[in-house]
Amino acid sequence: MNGEYVAEVKVRFADVDHARVVYYPRYFHYFHVAFEEMFEHGFGKAYAQVVEREHVGFPAVRTECDYRAPARFGDVLRIRVTCPKIGSRSLTLHYRAERAKDGVLCADARVTTACVDLRTFTSQMVPEEYRALFARYSEG
Amino acid sequence: MNGEYVAEVKVRFADVDHARVVYYPRYFHYFHVAFEEMFEHGFGKAYAQVVEREHVGFPAVRTECDYRAPARFGDVLRIRVTCPKIGSRSLTLHYRAERAKDGVLCADARVTTACVDLRTFTSQMVPEEYRALFARYSEG
Amino acid sequence: MNGEYVAEVKVRFADVDHARVVYYPRYFHYFHVAFEEMFEHGFGKAYAQVVEREHVGFPAVRTECDYRAPARFGDVLRIRVTCPKIGSRSLTLHYRAERAKDGVLCADARVTTACVDLRTFTSQMVPEEYRALFARYSEG
Amino acid sequence: MNGEYVAEVKVRFADVDHARVVYYPRYFHYFHVAFEEMFEHGFGKAYAQVVEREHVGFPAVRTECDYRAPARFGDVLRIRVTCPKIGSRSLTLHYRAERAKDGVLCADARVTTACVDLRTFTSQMVPEEYRALFARYSEG
Repeated sequence: MNGEYVAEVKVRFADVDHARVVYYPRYFHYFHVAFEEMFEHGFGKAYAQVVEREHVGFPAVRTECDYRAPARFGDVLRIRVTCPKIGSRSLTLHYRAERAKDGVLCADARVTTACVDLRTFTSQMVPEEYRALFARYSEG
Repeated sequence: MNGEYVAEVKVRFADVDHARVVYYPRYFHYFHVAFEEMFEHGFGKAYAQVVEREHVGFPAVRTECDYRAPARFGDVLRIRVTCPKIGSRSLTLHYRAERAKDGVLCADARVTTACVDLRTFTSQMVPEEYRALFARYSEG
Repeated sequence: MNGEYVAEVKVRFADVDHARVVYYPRYFHYFHVAFEEMFEHGFGKAYAQVVEREHVGFPAVRTECDYRAPARFGDVLRIRVTCPKIGSRSLTLHYRAERAKDGVLCADARVTTACVDLRTFTSQMVPEEYRALFARYSEG
Repeated sequence: MNGEYVAEVKVRFADVDHARVVYYPRYFHYFHVAFEEMFEHGFGKAYAQVVEREHVGFPAVRTECDYRAPARFGDVLRIRVTCPKIGSRSLTLHYRAERAKDGVLCADARVTTACVDLRTFTSQMVPEEYRALFARYSEG
């Protein structure tokens, strides 16, 4: 309870844009990678299995992100994930991407996802199993 | 004045994720494409020239996006761009991505950018020339 | 007959890598975009429809590419597509990406694709309809 | 030496295309990730440092790839890297991507790179230091 999941991603040669800083949409990809890692290593259940066998998905319905400092090729980003809100049919993830070398916060985002039945792409209740798993990283 | 810039992008075969809807970070790429098109066709000045010759850049410092409906492979998205706020050292773009076939709003985003000198990646005043250009699409 | 299909793509702000030239895997994405455009505008049938309604797909089984000159942010690439070989269960596309501003050939690739039934991802004969369509761009 | 460098990459949620198999250009990105990992862990020198401090780069000049089996979301790919040819101004890397779960070879590629001075993007001799490092993974 009240923990956080921490994933690390490396800024790759082509993750940067012409200005040689991480292209801002790329952070949301990093956050999705952290989300996938959280399932596999935090929950002990690969997201691929959740999606393919249980047809449960968590598509983004709202995102917010503050970009505070640039990250560059060769940087390692430590992504701290918590789950500040678990609703009946949605949940919110909080992602903070810090440069591992100096702890500087590069991006601070909240991603609210629905819970859907992927066969129909319609909203459903967050299954109790997942409510309990996300609660491991609740902020309260 | 009070106009909007409209760009069109096509959802490509690999723009979707495993759930076969546009991967949510991808919308921010589409918005950047619309931003580049707005420079070229709305302002009459390619963003590549602005960046390379004038060393002026507009990196994102904050984004917000509501994802309202999925877009799928083969959809055309009409991206409506306006500029609701032009500050002294930053500006905000408003992007709405509608499916061309039915007018459904898929994503509605605001991207606040700084204005930087790309040689030093430090904040600078938005040059008067660009204030006037972005004002073409002010919402007021 | 013996024609070529020509698509244009623009090198976007984030299509380049840290060296500020188009990231070499990106060319294959450009070639796929040209392939999709060829269906829509050359064949008069969107690839999304072919894939979704007919379950016919053309996954790559072999690629070769010579990278001859770099392309950079702001460049427009003219992609010339021909179909040098149409086999019973596969075909080969030839893609040449030229910089529009000076005609310099940047990348020259051949992509051999299978023809598959996407429901089973198993090889099938190239349907007669598509043999005739690809033949429009045969090199002979 | 006659060794090989082995990197592992995971197929992410959005690495697949509409057909739900890894988008074929993506393999070249995986190979570049393996190349970066080989520098860091095989050579003990981050590629970011090589590029930024020494201005030495290895851009692709020719690629060939056979795609033998599809990889899907959730698969782990083991990428085996060897260096079959070290010329005076170029070298060839051989990449084989195997699915970790069953050892099936998904993609088998050769990427020939030039060696360039990144300040001018002109060809140069492969520095002796790097000839020795790549020789660790020569196939002979």
